[in-house]
Amino acid sequence: MGDTDSYLICDATLATMTGSDPAYGLVPDGLIVVHDGWIRWCGSEAQLPKDYSDWPRISMAGRLVTPGLIDCHTHIVFGGNRAMEFEMRLNGASYEDVARAGGGIVSTVSATRTASLEDLVQGALPRLDALIAEGATVVEVKSGYGLDRETELNMLRAARRLSELRPVTAKTTFLGAHATPGEYKGRDDDYIDQVCIPALRAAHAEGLVDAVDGFCENIAFAPAQIERVFKAARELALPVKLHAEQLSHQGGTALAAQYGALSVDHVEYATEDDARAMAASGSVAVILPGAFYTIRETQAPPIEHFRAHGVPMALATDCNPGSSPLTSLLLTMNMGCTLFRMTPEEALAGVTRNAARALGLTDRGQIAAGMRADLAVWDVETPGELAYRIGFNPLYTRIYEGKR
Amino acid sequence: MGDTDSYLICDATLATMTGSDPAYGLVPDGLIVVHDGWIRWCGSEAQLPKDYSDWPRISMAGRLVTPGLIDCHTHIVFGGNRAMEFEMRLNGASYEDVARAGGGIVSTVSATRTASLEDLVQGALPRLDALIAEGATVVEVKSGYGLDRETELNMLRAARRLSELRPVTAKTTFLGAHATPGEYKGRDDDYIDQVCIPALRAAHAEGLVDAVDGFCENIAFAPAQIERVFKAARELALPVKLHAEQLSHQGGTALAAQYGALSVDHVEYATEDDARAMAASGSVAVILPGAFYTIRETQAPPIEHFRAHGVPMALATDCNPGSSPLTSLLLTMNMGCTLFRMTPEEALAGVTRNAARALGLTDRGQIAAGMRADLAVWDVETPGELAYRIGFNPLYTRIYEGKR
Ligand SMILES: [Zn+2]
Ligand SMILES: [Zn+2]
Repeated sequence: MGDTDSYLICDATLATMTGSDPAYGLVPDGLIVVHDGWIRWCGSEAQLPKDYSDWPRISMAGRLVTPGLIDCHTHIVFGGNRAMEFEMRLNGASYEDVARAGGGIVSTVSATRTASLEDLVQGALPRLDALIAEGATVVEVKSGYGLDRETELNMLRAARRLSELRPVTAKTTFLGAHATPGEYKGRDDDYIDQVCIPALRAAHAEGLVDAVDGFCENIAFAPAQIERVFKAARELALPVKLHAEQLSHQGGTALAAQYGALSVDHVEYATEDDARAMAASGSVAVILPGAFYTIRETQAPPIEHFRAHGVPMALATDCNPGSSPLTSLLLTMNMGCTLFRMTPEEALAGVTRNAARALGLTDRGQIAAGMRADLAVWDVETPGELAYRIGFNPLYTRIYEGKR
Repeated sequence: MGDTDSYLICDATLATMTGSDPAYGLVPDGLIVVHDGWIRWCGSEAQLPKDYSDWPRISMAGRLVTPGLIDCHTHIVFGGNRAMEFEMRLNGASYEDVARAGGGIVSTVSATRTASLEDLVQGALPRLDALIAEGATVVEVKSGYGLDRETELNMLRAARRLSELRPVTAKTTFLGAHATPGEYKGRDDDYIDQVCIPALRAAHAEGLVDAVDGFCENIAFAPAQIERVFKAARELALPVKLHAEQLSHQGGTALAAQYGALSVDHVEYATEDDARAMAASGSVAVILPGAFYTIRETQAPPIEHFRAHGVPMALATDCNPGSSPLTSLLLTMNMGCTLFRMTPEEALAGVTRNAARALGLTDRGQIAAGMRADLAVWDVETPGELAYRIGFNPLYTRIYEGKR
């Protein structure tokens, strides 16, 4: 019983994130019983079952313990970067100037296609490490900058490799329906049928796909095109999610809800009816303030409707080289509060409990018996401080599957 | 010549920040000759004077070297924190509710007054360390949460102590005219004459004051009150600066320019005439996007007027517990670009060359012969990347007064 895989975390304030959404579920003077990477028991010192009373103890000296953080929407695997384009635009270049200079998503697709698997992994590691340094234990990674079969697969292989190289869980999402590549310009339907869906099947056959995503927007794909991808996902018994209503209302949310999507992401232009549909389908609203901030969007997502209809809300970085080169979940929490008036409690639920749900994970995102022992320990006095501070990392230590 | 205090930094791209404002002053394949904490020479490898050719070399392997970063406007010394108030407000509490619960600046003043010198130092160190971790070599620190003689002095003593404990220069600014404390409520003039000005003289006598600041605003002090403080500063031969035109136009900028202020800070509501006056007085416009972001201000500072009239622009965190709990200069740069459309070049000048000027420092903020060897070395491909990324720290190493 006293081996290193079995121990008690003691002298901690727990934000268990259990109870009714989004409650902190605070346990002052809390204890967590960890065994073999799992949480076996948690509660207050006074209630500790006798069986565990002689297990070795690790004191957290009164610190706050939360579930490990979960970034449920990222594009951290890609080639190149877009700093030059950022700088050109601020120096007055038009979209056309940028396009002529080879900028835009085209430049990322081209850099991603020429990158080797190893290049993709090495490029993503510093971004992943920044997330881990703030207590992340699960990070979702999307494909979608290959837009050809081999590169889409390579991006997902890179994602799988990340979780071998670092103590973190990488959940993979196939996003072939992100954009139509230049060689299929004007032939979106052909791209979906001839490249996207076959690539999805190939990626699934290689065990590379945990979920299937798309981008439903006037500058990307129409609901009918996305639906073909969703049908292919259903045949493979893969869960779906969708980038929807980011820049305009296209009806992607209703479609996603109809397919029981794990999540609908961005949703700035979602309506109250969309919120109702998401509540009915149990889909999580994944709020992405980094993109809202970077593109200077003015339409905020309908947080009040999500609250009113009981739609769980997650928060994620949307880390990507174009519209959200953001690698901080803590800053994402602050942005959710500052820009969208989410509460600090909703923000913490958004990067733990509800982020787990957006990934279909039932054993993460809460501190409770039966959950993985993925934890973050913080040098703060109250959980609200995590969202309050800007550009400051109070992480004391991170525990992944029971190991520091 | 070969001792450890004398060496060459080689194989680096230099952003010297010399030349006409705000130019990067890029030197590819650059060299810096460091001797005894100072830069003795810098230029390209091909032009290196023979005298230095056998000095020991430190290769930066092609990395970017900039001047050490300078945060020219902070309030990092204070007691307590205001996370509870942030959380209350987001949960729907009114200003009155917060005030009744003891929140607002009153709570910071009260926590600062009860803190010991050691408490103030220990509280500020994690914030200072966050700035240093991003390459800061100079940090300005204001008083202004004591609002009584002894606590104002204690805050400045804490600031001086910070630069003994860390390899960083702390520049102190007396900000007695920040707010009127409760015990002088309704008697702003008495506070200025009976507390603020005598405290300034006492602080100066103790060698604690590098510059004198005030808050000119409808919720703080009127220009005539600020002017009495400026006159006292002039008698002591101390330079002045001012928080002005943050929430409304009160005429503080014109007053500050008249007194040859080093800087005028916030300036969201400054006019083109104010920009002309600042250009004439050589005052720096210190742009504080963290406060703009946090209080959800909608009036952006008149960047175009500052550009048109040649007013140098700095960027700073304004780190404080109420309106800008921000401890990242890199994020401040990104906010300057994203929120105010400053260019990445202006942003870098704003935390180096122009930040030095806002503090009256003539030997920092540029890479040139005769400057202190305060440098930051970055894992980036272009200087624009520093402002482009959000919540990511690409610092490779920091050199302070010639020492790593
Ligand atoms: Zn996305
Ligand atoms: Zn200030």
